[in-house]
Amino acid sequence: MKTRNICASTLIFFAFSLHAETGYKAWLRYAPLDEPALTQYRQLTPAVIVALSDAGPEASARDESIRGLRGMLGRTLRAESAIPKESAVVLGTLDEFHRAAPQFHLDANLAADGYWLKTVADGPLHYTVVAAANSRGVLYGAFALLRKIALGESIANLDEKQSPTVPVRWVNEWDNLNGSIERGYGGLSIFWDNLHAREDLSRVNDYGRMLASLGINGCAINNVNANPRVLAPDFIPQIARIADAFRPWGVQVAISVDFASPQTIGGLDTFDPLDPKVAAWWAAKADELYRAVPDLGGVVLKADSEGRAGPSTYGRSHADAANVVARALKPHGGVLFYRGFVYDHHADWRNLKNDRARAAYDNFHDLDGKFDSNAIVQIKNGPIDFQIREPASPLFGTLPKTQEAIELQVTQEYMGQARHLVFLVPMWKDTLDFDMHTRATPAPVKSLVHAFVGVANVGLDDTWDGNNLSQANLYGFGRLAWNPDLSARQIVDEWTRLSFGLDRKVDATIAEMQLSSTRTYENYTGPLGLQNLTDITGNHYGVKVEASENNGWGQWHRADDKGVGMDRTMATGTGYIGQYAPAVANLFESLATCPDDLITFLHHVPYTYQLHSGKTVIQSIYDSHYEGAETVEEYVRQWESLRGLIDEQRYNQVLAQLEYQAGQAEVWRDAVTTWFFRASGIPDRKGRVDHYPGRVEAESMKLEGYNVVDVTPPEDASGGKAVSCPAAQCAATFRYDGAAGWYTLHVEYFDQMDGVSHYRLLINGQLIDEWGAAAQLPTRTLDSTSSTRRLITGIALRPGDQIRIEGKPDGRETAALDYVEILQK
Amino acid sequence: MKTRNICASTLIFFAFSLHAETGYKAWLRYAPLDEPALTQYRQLTPAVIVALSDAGPEASARDESIRGLRGMLGRTLRAESAIPKESAVVLGTLDEFHRAAPQFHLDANLAADGYWLKTVADGPLHYTVVAAANSRGVLYGAFALLRKIALGESIANLDEKQSPTVPVRWVNEWDNLNGSIERGYGGLSIFWDNLHAREDLSRVNDYGRMLASLGINGCAINNVNANPRVLAPDFIPQIARIADAFRPWGVQVAISVDFASPQTIGGLDTFDPLDPKVAAWWAAKADELYRAVPDLGGVVLKADSEGRAGPSTYGRSHADAANVVARALKPHGGVLFYRGFVYDHHADWRNLKNDRARAAYDNFHDLDGKFDSNAIVQIKNGPIDFQIREPASPLFGTLPKTQEAIELQVTQEYMGQARHLVFLVPMWKDTLDFDMHTRATPAPVKSLVHAFVGVANVGLDDTWDGNNLSQANLYGFGRLAWNPDLSARQIVDEWTRLSFGLDRKVDATIAEMQLSSTRTYENYTGPLGLQNLTDITGNHYGVKVEASENNGWGQWHRADDKGVGMDRTMATGTGYIGQYAPAVANLFESLATCPDDLITFLHHVPYTYQLHSGKTVIQSIYDSHYEGAETVEEYVRQWESLRGLIDEQRYNQVLAQLEYQAGQAEVWRDAVTTWFFRASGIPDRKGRVDHYPGRVEAESMKLEGYNVVDVTPPEDASGGKAVSCPAAQCAATFRYDGAAGWYTLHVEYFDQMDGVSHYRLLINGQLIDEWGAAAQLPTRTLDSTSSTRRLITGIALRPGDQIRIEGKPDGRETAALDYVEILQK
Repeated sequence: MKTRNICASTLIFFAFSLHAETGYKAWLRYAPLDEPALTQYRQLTPAVIVALSDAGPEASARDESIRGLRGMLGRTLRAESAIPKESAVVLGTLDEFHRAAPQFHLDANLAADGYWLKTVADGPLHYTVVAAANSRGVLYGAFALLRKIALGESIANLDEKQSPTVPVRWVNEWDNLNGSIERGYGGLSIFWDNLHAREDLSRVNDYGRMLASLGINGCAINNVNANPRVLAPDFIPQIARIADAFRPWGVQVAISVDFASPQTIGGLDTFDPLDPKVAAWWAAKADELYRAVPDLGGVVLKADSEGRAGPSTYGRSHADAANVVARALKPHGGVLFYRGFVYDHHADWRNLKNDRARAAYDNFHDLDGKFDSNAIVQIKNGPIDFQIREPASPLFGTLPKTQEAIELQVTQEYMGQARHLVFLVPMWKDTLDFDMHTRATPAPVKSLVHAFVGVANVGLDDTWDGNNLSQANLYGFGRLAWNPDLSARQIVDEWTRLSFGLDRKVDATIAEMQLSSTRTYENYTGPLGLQNLTDITGNHYGVKVEASENNGWGQWHRADDKGVGMDRTMATGTGYIGQYAPAVANLFESLATCPDDLITFLHHVPYTYQLHSGKTVIQSIYDSHYEGAETVEEYVRQWESLRGLIDEQRYNQVLAQLEYQAGQAEVWRDAVTTWFFRASGIPDRKGRVDHYPGRVEAESMKLEGYNVVDVTPPEDASGGKAVSCPAAQCAATFRYDGAAGWYTLHVEYFDQMDGVSHYRLLINGQLIDEWGAAAQLPTRTLDSTSSTRRLITGIALRPGDQIRIEGKPDGRETAALDYVEILQK
Repeated sequence: MKTRNICASTLIFFAFSLHAETGYKAWLRYAPLDEPALTQYRQLTPAVIVALSDAGPEASARDESIRGLRGMLGRTLRAESAIPKESAVVLGTLDEFHRAAPQFHLDANLAADGYWLKTVADGPLHYTVVAAANSRGVLYGAFALLRKIALGESIANLDEKQSPTVPVRWVNEWDNLNGSIERGYGGLSIFWDNLHAREDLSRVNDYGRMLASLGINGCAINNVNANPRVLAPDFIPQIARIADAFRPWGVQVAISVDFASPQTIGGLDTFDPLDPKVAAWWAAKADELYRAVPDLGGVVLKADSEGRAGPSTYGRSHADAANVVARALKPHGGVLFYRGFVYDHHADWRNLKNDRARAAYDNFHDLDGKFDSNAIVQIKNGPIDFQIREPASPLFGTLPKTQEAIELQVTQEYMGQARHLVFLVPMWKDTLDFDMHTRATPAPVKSLVHAFVGVANVGLDDTWDGNNLSQANLYGFGRLAWNPDLSARQIVDEWTRLSFGLDRKVDATIAEMQLSSTRTYENYTGPLGLQNLTDITGNHYGVKVEASENNGWGQWHRADDKGVGMDRTMATGTGYIGQYAPAVANLFESLATCPDDLITFLHHVPYTYQLHSGKTVIQSIYDSHYEGAETVEEYVRQWESLRGLIDEQRYNQVLAQLEYQAGQAEVWRDAVTTWFFRASGIPDRKGRVDHYPGRVEAESMKLEGYNVVDVTPPEDASGGKAVSCPAAQCAATFRYDGAAGWYTLHVEYFDQMDGVSHYRLLINGQLIDEWGAAAQLPTRTLDSTSSTRRLITGIALRPGDQIRIEGKPDGRETAALDYVEILQK
């Protein structure tokens, strides 16, 4: 009897694992079902599984089915090679079924990668058929069948056909060959280490499995800001190793390349795309690549953008650049993604007509029809750069003769960097469903694109993304890439149940948190189309309202003492609105119809301008920020209500994250509202801004050793100042004179990257709390990024109490303090 | 204002710890209370705590109260030094209360270490008073108050006085100075490493806290088989360091000493206890010890036992030996524990009148009245050595003029060594409550002893004892030492609720498992007073029915082909029964009244003898073993019913332990029943013994590379044989010819200490399971200790299936196999 190489080792240990849930399994937990579902599914599931082919994704489909059913049902199916005279799960392509089981009469037209789940009765026997157009489709169908069981959906009398909306569904990983990841928040690269593919590529295999479970069929494995070395002859075997790890999962490898490679790697004296030498070099390089990786998916190219080499060096067009590479790939079936993210980052900010949002359109719309059929223009969802609120990029509507990809950023570059809960699907849905009005019938973005690209940037962290809740973004990207008609709620419901089980309270609570998180984040960062108001020239994380202004990067919001917003109208502004079809342009152009959410993105309005909501712009900014911060505080309470209903490790990890986020949301709230209050001089109608009852500024305390320092920008610290310890140890003391009672102390301190300062809080000499500033936040200075909250609950205060904080610096960290707030709760 | 050194650092991190529950906190978890208890206790708990003394155990009492209330109520009490004009918790000795708060009128007679919890109302204010005879009592009272809250008991209108039954409540730790522990199953020593006290003694501090929570006031910190070095002048500072770590918890350090120390350490030419030089040496050594450790509790002495030096060298008595040391300790208030565990381990087994059970009585009863008042004879609960079923030692009843201590073994030397769940309290209670009938009024053992000693042997393992459920034994020992009238159920209820919370299902399930576990272990090891039937000359763990026979150690059961048991009668046997008072002796002497549980301990009876239960001896042995093994299997199911109700790590640890134990119980069942079946030739009436449907012996399979080997003793393997792999890899294959269906495969293999063999199980070439033999079981051979079960559930078998096991040896481990059993479940 033939021995099969079934991945039973991992599958068994998976099912019986006694280890805590770390998040590593993501939505593929295959947790044991509870009764009565267990009994029901056991009755419906046969004992035999047959894959009509014993190779490639079909073999993976069989092994994954065995693994998943083992986990959920506690039963190991028999892997047989021929359809048995008993009920069985049978996996195969339509062609294979026609040969092996003509009696099943499986006739269907399925798109590539599509599948058909079908129950075929044969007398008392029943065959659970997973049929597909190709072997990858068989794998996707097997995952779909497992998902149904995990979600508690019926698998009796199946007859369901599914095909993906677009044929190309890729992730991009911005992994550098040294193992770091540009905009990666889940640890170091799973692919690269020290300019080589990692010795142990088991994480790549596991990642391939996750991608396949979503129907993602390609992965670009290095940073779009590409190291030319990726095309060096001695490096190509490294790519092949990674492709080998992905191949069982039907995930094709792609690479990002540097456009100057013919010169830097090839030794030519030019990289002019119209030079025949250059074209020949790309063709030969493609041949070389495909000898090593016969199923290479293709190439991603970022050119003439943010300092990358590009065709402009030779006065050539983006189409010229794309086509020279695309033509080299064409004979091998490869595709070329050409990034549309091209703009001038040295724009003159004094010219009110300049507008970065116009750049993609301006650069590409004339090139429609000039790209080869296997060259795809990869367009970010919005015209700027993954901000929390942007209109759909006008470019989507203006390249009818060009293959378009929508690029969505799964990694949370501007979205809290996996320290904040921000579910991106509702935002993506806004773009995908946005009607560009470029034809008589509805023209939502999702109907215009031919490919989906998600910038995933997973890492070696156990959670892949840096935290457990952020996994919903990768899941959501994959599901939308397969079927963009799915709603955000459908997606989050699936993800939550797969990731946390079928407890109704758990599912309802997490789904609501995820769904509201996008608006919440917008509320406490940049509402009304302000964009993120973050440090755009620095870490893209903390608050820095003015970071966008007075520089050439073009993310201007143009707030001054009278009003705020970019005038992008046709009438008086940059004319950006004119890049849209008239129906959209008219909607945006008129203040009467422009949505509140985009008002300052499209118009410059006075702070006193009254929104559709009935509020003034300034009051709306104040209210949004307070509402956002309060909602995150509420997330903490909601999550705490799930204690005991979720496995311990994930419960604790998420709780710690939400508590941190709640503190950060307050930092954002205070910084942004303070900045706009100072700019506008208009007080908050509710009396909250610049008025913090119970707050004692560190600079007002009795200081021993501490120096008072100015914080830059001033809105990053309460009162614009902090205290910083230049000695081995310092202390700040104040006297409490309020009423006796139970309180929570909120200590705002600064936790920089370098060193772990230690703090102690004492009341009347009694040590109440101590902690270390041990987080790795992306800053070396005292600012909103390092500003961190410590809550000390259940403290009895009496009038006259001496409250003292002792700080002990470490390394370059100065045990700095911002304030203490005494809260009545 | 004065700064106090309150241990707030640990307390805060404890309360907010995001780490998994590892068992480290044992019964002192101080887990947050759920509503409505939280609100109720918050209302009853004042905001201020006052310790009338700021030093020693009283300071610990205050800090522990703050820590515990912080954990359970989420509130940090204010530590003040004077009784405030508001409600407060007030801690102090009666003397301190008389001085500081005469208005409280706290008058009581409390024994040393006793406490009084009392609510004192003062107008609208109320003071929760913890008053005590001494500062240690204050600490015990504080723990009692915290325990009440954790258990959900009322703390309103307190008026409860508690005093310990005996003044001396110690643990002994058999820790060697090199860091190993004789009979320790929870990791290496918390005290010693490489002949020094450990650098980091924080574990000792934490252990002191655990001991104090139970009212244990002394700890002997080195093995009773003492290294003489413990008394070397340069070593004594090491003892002082450990005493410093224990002191805040009122735990006095004691040491075990070697009786030849005057010669080996002192350089004298003798250690004759009646030699004045020797007495002077002990006196000087005591002075030296007390200079280093002024509160040293005393000394433990094992002499003339199992090869230790003793007074017999000079023809002196045990009293002489005890008194020479006791007199040296007397001026300092120290006590001397003299172990009664003295017997001849070279006894002639052919002499049916020889009897080790007689030894303690024979050696000590003539010495009654000859021991000094601070010399305590330390007597094991039974006359042999911590076996699962022994009568109370007759010595308890025969030393009316001597201070007696009962020595209970908390560490599970013969009780599964922390791999088996065995709750020892019911067994201890049997002895403590046993009426010795030595006076007209009831004379239970608990009324005869003056001290409790528990051999605890905790280690560096996170669980202290090697597993979470075994912690109940240390808890139970401490509680009984304080109050031996507590029932096993009271104790286990307390422990379970403190350790796992107040869920009713959890509490009921765990309590029932614990309470029945003693009988269960007896059932599958040695019922009817057979003793443990373990490898008494080896690891004291696995089955070895004949290990006790034909050697001088005297743990004989004298089983032969006709019957079993030691004839200890006065009429025809060793006369041991005559060591008891007549009422007891008469009960034991007559078969008509001798309890079934002790029948073979006291009598030699034919296998066909009919017990009070109505069964024959042999059938009772068979039935007990099957019942015991089934009950452990049931424990697994019971524990699984608690999934999700217990924190993940402890749930998983205990589940793995119980699954292992269930396999071991089968090994025991099969080995003992097989042995007695072979010896007696009497078949099991229920047809189970030597008849194993579905079992396929490895030696009957088709072997590739495997050799058939004899296992010694033969009952340790099914059929007396196993297969062992002398090559790099071997395989054993057999054909399944039963009915088609779903099955569980039970693979019995051997997991020795050295190496990690790997096994793979394949069906028709499909890899179904693989595992490594990675347990650290105390054996290097193929025997019942290494015999281990692997259960593979949910397997679909069809007639004709080839079942194949591949084994890959590692190191000295030979990937050996015993059998495969195919179970219909």
